[in-house]
Amino acid sequence: MPAANLCFASDNVVGAHVVVAEAVMRANQGAEAAYGGDDATRRVTRQLADLFGREVAVQLVATGTGANALALASVTPPWGAVLTHLESHVSDDECGAPEFFTHGAKIVGLAGEGCKLDPAAVDERLRRMPRGVLRQVQPAVLSITQATECGLVYTPAEIAALAEVCRRHAILLHMDGARFANAVAASGVPARAMTVEAGVDLMSFGFTKNGAFAAEAVVFLDPAKAGELAWRTKRGGHVLSKNRFVAVQVEALLANDLWLANAAHANAMARKLAAGLAAKGLMLGWAVEANEVFPLLPLAVAARIEQAGFALRDWSPLALPPGVTVPAAHRLVRLVCSFATRAEDVAGLVAAAG
Amino acid sequence: MPAANLCFASDNVVGAHVVVAEAVMRANQGAEAAYGGDDATRRVTRQLADLFGREVAVQLVATGTGANALALASVTPPWGAVLTHLESHVSDDECGAPEFFTHGAKIVGLAGEGCKLDPAAVDERLRRMPRGVLRQVQPAVLSITQATECGLVYTPAEIAALAEVCRRHAILLHMDGARFANAVAASGVPARAMTVEAGVDLMSFGFTKNGAFAAEAVVFLDPAKAGELAWRTKRGGHVLSKNRFVAVQVEALLANDLWLANAAHANAMARKLAAGLAAKGLMLGWAVEANEVFPLLPLAVAARIEQAGFALRDWSPLALPPGVTVPAAHRLVRLVCSFATRAEDVAGLVAAAG
Amino acid sequence: MPAANLCFASDNVVGAHVVVAEAVMRANQGAEAAYGGDDATRRVTRQLADLFGREVAVQLVATGTGANALALASVTPPWGAVLTHLESHVSDDECGAPEFFTHGAKIVGLAGEGCKLDPAAVDERLRRMPRGVLRQVQPAVLSITQATECGLVYTPAEIAALAEVCRRHAILLHMDGARFANAVAASGVPARAMTVEAGVDLMSFGFTKNGAFAAEAVVFLDPAKAGELAWRTKRGGHVLSKNRFVAVQVEALLANDLWLANAAHANAMARKLAAGLAAKGLMLGWAVEANEVFPLLPLAVAARIEQAGFALRDWSPLALPPGVTVPAAHRLVRLVCSFATRAEDVAGLVAAAG
Amino acid sequence: MPAANLCFASDNVVGAHVVVAEAVMRANQGAEAAYGGDDATRRVTRQLADLFGREVAVQLVATGTGANALALASVTPPWGAVLTHLESHVSDDECGAPEFFTHGAKIVGLAGEGCKLDPAAVDERLRRMPRGVLRQVQPAVLSITQATECGLVYTPAEIAALAEVCRRHAILLHMDGARFANAVAASGVPARAMTVEAGVDLMSFGFTKNGAFAAEAVVFLDPAKAGELAWRTKRGGHVLSKNRFVAVQVEALLANDLWLANAAHANAMARKLAAGLAAKGLMLGWAVEANEVFPLLPLAVAARIEQAGFALRDWSPLALPPGVTVPAAHRLVRLVCSFATRAEDVAGLVAAAG
Repeated sequence: MPAANLCFASDNVVGAHVVVAEAVMRANQGAEAAYGGDDATRRVTRQLADLFGREVAVQLVATGTGANALALASVTPPWGAVLTHLESHVSDDECGAPEFFTHGAKIVGLAGEGCKLDPAAVDERLRRMPRGVLRQVQPAVLSITQATECGLVYTPAEIAALAEVCRRHAILLHMDGARFANAVAASGVPARAMTVEAGVDLMSFGFTKNGAFAAEAVVFLDPAKAGELAWRTKRGGHVLSKNRFVAVQVEALLANDLWLANAAHANAMARKLAAGLAAKGLMLGWAVEANEVFPLLPLAVAARIEQAGFALRDWSPLALPPGVTVPAAHRLVRLVCSFATRAEDVAGLVAAAG
Repeated sequence: MPAANLCFASDNVVGAHVVVAEAVMRANQGAEAAYGGDDATRRVTRQLADLFGREVAVQLVATGTGANALALASVTPPWGAVLTHLESHVSDDECGAPEFFTHGAKIVGLAGEGCKLDPAAVDERLRRMPRGVLRQVQPAVLSITQATECGLVYTPAEIAALAEVCRRHAILLHMDGARFANAVAASGVPARAMTVEAGVDLMSFGFTKNGAFAAEAVVFLDPAKAGELAWRTKRGGHVLSKNRFVAVQVEALLANDLWLANAAHANAMARKLAAGLAAKGLMLGWAVEANEVFPLLPLAVAARIEQAGFALRDWSPLALPPGVTVPAAHRLVRLVCSFATRAEDVAGLVAAAG
Repeated sequence: MPAANLCFASDNVVGAHVVVAEAVMRANQGAEAAYGGDDATRRVTRQLADLFGREVAVQLVATGTGANALALASVTPPWGAVLTHLESHVSDDECGAPEFFTHGAKIVGLAGEGCKLDPAAVDERLRRMPRGVLRQVQPAVLSITQATECGLVYTPAEIAALAEVCRRHAILLHMDGARFANAVAASGVPARAMTVEAGVDLMSFGFTKNGAFAAEAVVFLDPAKAGELAWRTKRGGHVLSKNRFVAVQVEALLANDLWLANAAHANAMARKLAAGLAAKGLMLGWAVEANEVFPLLPLAVAARIEQAGFALRDWSPLALPPGVTVPAAHRLVRLVCSFATRAEDVAGLVAAAG
Repeated sequence: MPAANLCFASDNVVGAHVVVAEAVMRANQGAEAAYGGDDATRRVTRQLADLFGREVAVQLVATGTGANALALASVTPPWGAVLTHLESHVSDDECGAPEFFTHGAKIVGLAGEGCKLDPAAVDERLRRMPRGVLRQVQPAVLSITQATECGLVYTPAEIAALAEVCRRHAILLHMDGARFANAVAASGVPARAMTVEAGVDLMSFGFTKNGAFAAEAVVFLDPAKAGELAWRTKRGGHVLSKNRFVAVQVEALLANDLWLANAAHANAMARKLAAGLAAKGLMLGWAVEANEVFPLLPLAVAARIEQAGFALRDWSPLALPPGVTVPAAHRLVRLVCSFATRAEDVAGLVAAAG
């Protein structure tokens, strides 16, 4: 099966941006202190502090699942609960990694259109989790995904409303930012406004999908809360001995806003793809706000696209808007664009669709 | 402090071998299935099967601690015990990662000169761990390190003798091969003879110290025992989305026996370093059998070396040969050579010593 | 506050049946092997084998939470999932004990009227948990409660239908039998027909609410699956040193069907209570099929009952039948009858209600 | 085999003291709040506060393993270490329960004659566990057993010396008091002097061996440190629903110093047994300071004792005094006396020995 098939399968099927690759090569000389004692790691921490406009605690790791699980475990006791969308990556796609790292905390899934959470729904659920009642796990943190698993982007006001609920119930707010770059690029909202100012306490800041080989950052926007993070990371086997090579990937992406340029390209390709499909009369499950497109394809159309060599991934309909269902003889599929998606790939798929 | 200082601090302070770096760059194009569904991962599994002369189950990860913990957890129940040297990496340098991944199994440390384990001592300890007695944890696996944490190399006969004890007590034999390449290169014993034929059941095969950026392989020499490995890896956050970039590192090292050439170079530099120090009348804690040198330095000599810009790492004297102690006004330190160690580095340190 | 207040608060607010107490006193002489090596423990295993009409593996413990958690953990890997009602005791009232004992398995909650599960809903959920897909936890066991947390009783046919779904998806069926006695007594269905013949694989058989001081049995109806149970129990600190005193409680309850007589009394008191409340025109949230009554009380009525000295416990309305809600100015409360409930208590509460 | 055989096998082979049994019977009426909300539980907390001369936090549980594991887990993070004697109950007889409840902390075993720990040895070990070094688990608590597993009793000065080492290294001091009563009764040192004043931070206070059916108390002598205890207990399935029946056992033992009278009797029987054996020329492994006797029996003597119907339990020789070994053709065995041991049992065994 030719590699081109996969080009919309995910944003982790492609490699690294050339600038990232060159940064790795450049760093490949001399001896540096291992396990994060290197200069590049320090420089990245500084970059992130500048980006968020305040001191932060940073831990670089190689996987997004590791980043999410370590972040959540550092703020959730074993008898705690993580509230999140019932179809979030944290809840549904990590084989229980958050449960493993928290030593068995409960991941409480909430419904919400497009994998977005509604403050009222979060508040209602939290009111049913009384504090100090021994028989019930205790809420510790709310985890939202930005952009969501359905490709939607929270506004700062929406995040602030969720943060207000969290504060009222004395829990923290975590952001799974596997596609944070896409959300920032799409909305034009600066990273600081979307996090620190909106009330986010800690986040998983993803770089792998954005153009790295393997680089994710757990970022505690309040470093005072990060006391356990380093221990959990070491014990989880997630401290890389040659950590500088992760650090320089992040450094290269943050420098000159390459991370935003990459995301903007991916977003633009997604919009182009959506427009092309719409022009063929195809409907989408959710609006295209970042780099993901979720068309509802008649089976014949889906078959044509697959015959043209594009892999399609079926997607869950559970978070479709109220009243929307997958019509008979249709498939709801996900198409993802990345920094490496080419306009001709988009054109090819659109052509195949119609 | 100039980077050169660190050149003997560890074999993970240097970067990747140029051939490895080039392989990564070469792989950086096109789209490939994520999470290990790529061709490079398949090719590496094939290479390892060829190397060991039998089908194997392989899981690539980015850290040695992850590899060890995943390997041990896949064969040890929570109420099990891992026997190992009391100063092995698994016991003493991973912040309890094996305990984390096994959900609380006991790591039982045994004494042994040079971090080597003696079959009689292992047997005696196992005889004090009766099977089926509920109040006591149940032995599940013996973990040995090859080359050891003191730079010694087990012979195939020594490994076979330990394997025989394991078989008698119905436990498995794990090899922490963080420096397996150095052991194979130093001894001339083929990989298969040192593992499969000697009775090793599973191993952590290290490539990072040998010239990779970040690449380790958990290898089950009997794939039938690997049923839990993939789940534990995913749940541990150790499955890399762009796994091909780990795979090509391993592939490049195994191809044309680069892994052995790298190790042979490191070993040769260590021998040269040891000879140079001996010529100055300095004593060693243990024989130099792989790529590590452990001199007993008079304080004045140590100070001169440090003034010359070389970082020294103090080492534990607990595994010194019987009767040997660190003399007054001396330090026992570790010096490690790698594929990247230059003869002039060695000469520089030796010169500083005298 | 006088003790009488609590008489409908739960079935664990009363002490032990006099026959149970006398059995404990009778056993209080001489020396017996500790940790379950005693004769009484063997006798109870035999009694349970006779009751279920087949060899069983039994572990006695002191708490229902311990029994449930140990049972589930013995058949669920850390990356497994336990399906259950979203308001079952296992899901909602044990502070995450199943997550603790399973090392972080996921408890997947399903909706269902009266805390009963529907085979079609279970099947639908299981079809969304594909086997062998690494990113998703793997279903291992379905846990149902008999009688349910809303006081309903599954018929053997209903259990068999759920068991058929379990078999089809290759998972086990666990029964939380904290009120198993009430279900058996209410339905007249023999224990064996309600479990072994209906396809239950393992159960938590509760005796504490039924008239013991503290006695619960984990019963594997297929002893071949119980290999891990003893280890998990010991490691959980749930093996009692003077185990015979738990055993004789169970023995006394099983002898001469005292367990059924106790349950029949509790059930009869519940029916009497329900009839009395109905005669006052009060509605119930769910039918009274065992020993629990869930009236929907106008606030004024509830206040009168409380003023008469009866403690009321508010109950969740989530599992009310479709279309039923708690009317404005009403409370949904739980009243529980036990072996020790007196007719005058019932009369007293009914009188207070109106 | 007649029950009398077991009378020296352990102090948990006998039942409960008659006063305890009567207290349970007396409590067996009326309804009381479940899960520790009862009056008896409050009264016991008050009794313990009076005994220790300060406010304490108390959690009653049914097993000693549960008490130890919950106590240690409440003060040890997963990446922490518990220092203890290598043959302590916590280290060697609980199937890894402390590891389970701590989520994988390391139990670090130290040598020491008679299972007593030496402050210098503890200090030396702690100095090899540097703080803040990520690759190494972090010491959190020292656990000592009073009386020890070899029947020795720490003096307050010895405990204070260990507490001083703990304070210096910023770790806590836990006392496994499974036989605390025997130690207090034997030494005449008040409970407060042996704990609070000597620097103990928390303890497992055992009542089961002392004359209860099943009753142990986790006591935090500084209640401010007990914040996690209740959650861990609930989640461990160790909160008893009818908790009052555990509470009244403890209450009955503490009232009128029955706990000390019981222990004094057991200790006196042990001294009598030791004297009788000494008169026959038999040697002891350790001095008899509490209620345990460890004779070194010639095989023929051991055989005679067994033929007379007394069960003997072989004991580990690892903690014998320096220079002492088990002579050829001898067995080191443990004999335990309890509140229920009769003088004629002692005479019977001594007679059989000679």
